[in-house]
Amino acid sequence: MPGTNILYAQSGGVTPVINATAASVIETAREYPDDFGTVYGAADGIIGALEERLIDTSSFSADDLVALGQTPGGVFGSCRYKLKSLDDNRREYERLVAVLDAHDIGTFLYNGGNDSADTAFKISRMAEELGYPLRALGVPKTIDNDLVVTDNCPGFGSVAKYVNVSILEASLDVMSMSSSSTKVFIMEVMGRHAGWIAAAAGLARRGEGDPPQIILFPEVPFDREAFCAAVERSVTTHGYCSVVVSEGARDAEGTFLADAGTTDAFGHKQLGGVAPVVAGIVGHELGHKVHWAVCDYLQRSARHIASATDVAHARAVGRAAVEFARAGQTGVMPVIRRTSDEPYAWTIASAPLGDIANREKTLPADYISADGFGITDKARRYLEPLIRGEDYPPYDEHGLPEYFRPTLEPVPARLDPFTPA
Amino acid sequence: MPGTNILYAQSGGVTPVINATAASVIETAREYPDDFGTVYGAADGIIGALEERLIDTSSFSADDLVALGQTPGGVFGSCRYKLKSLDDNRREYERLVAVLDAHDIGTFLYNGGNDSADTAFKISRMAEELGYPLRALGVPKTIDNDLVVTDNCPGFGSVAKYVNVSILEASLDVMSMSSSSTKVFIMEVMGRHAGWIAAAAGLARRGEGDPPQIILFPEVPFDREAFCAAVERSVTTHGYCSVVVSEGARDAEGTFLADAGTTDAFGHKQLGGVAPVVAGIVGHELGHKVHWAVCDYLQRSARHIASATDVAHARAVGRAAVEFARAGQTGVMPVIRRTSDEPYAWTIASAPLGDIANREKTLPADYISADGFGITDKARRYLEPLIRGEDYPPYDEHGLPEYFRPTLEPVPARLDPFTPA
Repeated sequence: MPGTNILYAQSGGVTPVINATAASVIETAREYPDDFGTVYGAADGIIGALEERLIDTSSFSADDLVALGQTPGGVFGSCRYKLKSLDDNRREYERLVAVLDAHDIGTFLYNGGNDSADTAFKISRMAEELGYPLRALGVPKTIDNDLVVTDNCPGFGSVAKYVNVSILEASLDVMSMSSSSTKVFIMEVMGRHAGWIAAAAGLARRGEGDPPQIILFPEVPFDREAFCAAVERSVTTHGYCSVVVSEGARDAEGTFLADAGTTDAFGHKQLGGVAPVVAGIVGHELGHKVHWAVCDYLQRSARHIASATDVAHARAVGRAAVEFARAGQTGVMPVIRRTSDEPYAWTIASAPLGDIANREKTLPADYISADGFGITDKARRYLEPLIRGEDYPPYDEHGLPEYFRPTLEPVPARLDPFTPA
Repeated sequence: MPGTNILYAQSGGVTPVINATAASVIETAREYPDDFGTVYGAADGIIGALEERLIDTSSFSADDLVALGQTPGGVFGSCRYKLKSLDDNRREYERLVAVLDAHDIGTFLYNGGNDSADTAFKISRMAEELGYPLRALGVPKTIDNDLVVTDNCPGFGSVAKYVNVSILEASLDVMSMSSSSTKVFIMEVMGRHAGWIAAAAGLARRGEGDPPQIILFPEVPFDREAFCAAVERSVTTHGYCSVVVSEGARDAEGTFLADAGTTDAFGHKQLGGVAPVVAGIVGHELGHKVHWAVCDYLQRSARHIASATDVAHARAVGRAAVEFARAGQTGVMPVIRRTSDEPYAWTIASAPLGDIANREKTLPADYISADGFGITDKARRYLEPLIRGEDYPPYDEHGLPEYFRPTLEPVPARLDPFTPA
């Protein structure tokens, strides 16, 4: 008798390696045909689960799964949608259990961040309450690296590698030209609430004079004068200055610099972008020629320069989630446990979702250097292993990555339509 | 008796592969010790040549040269500085010849674009006039791809590959999230005067529904209404819309969209950035959630994802420049001559600098599709071979590219100091 089926759903912002987790889940489940039947992917995350839009992955060949594991974005689609509390929205939890029941699903894997850990936790409790036999597990993923308990979050290491390679390369460009042209370069990275990605970009700076000379963290209130002085110091000493700024950089009052009231010609408030604001300060206060880049989604999807360590993490948590479910665990999440910085060594452990849900790991204060513009050795020891190794996708003969882009049709619905709140 | 020395100088904006040309020049010169002595690099381009700041490359080992060829930026430094006409600035041309003479330089190689071809041409004439035996050659380089005679310009193919990989990856991200979050993504690319890079980004679109759905060219006046309609059509049909916009996009009056009067909170006119302007239009006119990225120097320095074809071009023009000089040619530039689109085949030919200097290759009108938002098959046939193949730099065990970053000291000056105009 085959085992029950698995429903796997992706949640929140995608990462360069979330599909590596998806591929690993499917591959691992196939290793245990006595324990697991079909692996379904929820189209557009939890919304598709509620709407009973389930993708049957049985048609994915072994080669497809290899390709899937090398493709950025979320293959089934993801969504930003948080289920309310059980009391406020019992209807949606009951619907979820009904969908699971209709498709003989005994394992629900929710691949996401804090919110998803909370949702998976509540679903496990709801199933228990309704007497439905379910193993509900979270699977970690977030470029924000803000999940507690786990050493780091799959997705973060690859973004960290991208921003390091990018600031290093752009700085080599600026260095070349600084005698007569651009002297200051500003690169905006993600991290609205915490400076994990900004901190990671500091790895490129291995010695005095290396870029980036300045990092602007959300955790350090922006001091215009100190910043301008630091830029000037770098230009004087090194001929140029490379700056990494977090989208979450804010002033002493807590206002995001990106929201500093920039308006376009039509009187519209401009949408986001702290790099141009900081560039404006450099240009107008210091008079240097300045260039700026905004990485935005490029950093979050750059599978072409993924960290091999991060890919290994992403695959390992996918495998562990299936194996923990097989062992009957529910209400847990596989987490990465670091056992050594150098050589970097790690294992996967099982942690209760209740310990993870709705909590947030902030950037430790002792990761930021005394002047507020760089990272400490402690930060470096933590961050550095995460960008190790390259894991290139294959390219076709026309020079583009061979990403897996299937056309996915949900299986026929067995329940009445349902509209999420 | 060893031959005379070579002075190699980099000019204008650098590229991901200009150092591949530099490495190739040095390697090739070393193959002919009877014909060539020392290869000097001019620090900061022509400015360093005028100031007699010459870098002796003799200390570069064979391994160093391999590493140099895999490093972005310009190793000796470049500059934006155009010598005036012979009549207006005879002083600088005479100084250049004096520097060449002082260091026994018989070959001057100027690695740049239109302006540099002009300068090399004038230097060759000036040397002739002064009776100084010199072979002055141009070596092509520019991400703008606007040199005439040559099929394409080293540097362009790698930028083209970067923008394609980037828009493809970011679009996979947006596709994943579009059901409940960002529906429109806008990526700004370089090309203030011509849409070569924007056009190249169209290669990622191989079929109906592929990204980018819209390209905004400098050559096509921005039509707000048509643009909004096209975005809406893509969102309706595909669920999302990916837009590539050239920094040179302009309205019917010829005003750059980036200069559309954006001011920051301090009343400063904002420096550059067409992507946020276009994002503002999408957000305010259509109400879709929109994200935007500005590649800026990241595209121009992305050696980590260089096109192998482009690297081969860059190396070939470096080698040919030395070999042409060895054959006694002067006042010429090695150019790429395409002999077949499929299979892509090319050779290097010698072209008079007078045919190249100060002219500009614009994007052909028949490369832009009838609706003005995409590229034609003809464009695709031309562009596609240029992004073929990957040429990865080596990475160290800490996960970053091993780029060549020597400390360079000029050789002692033999002339009195000189200040360029």
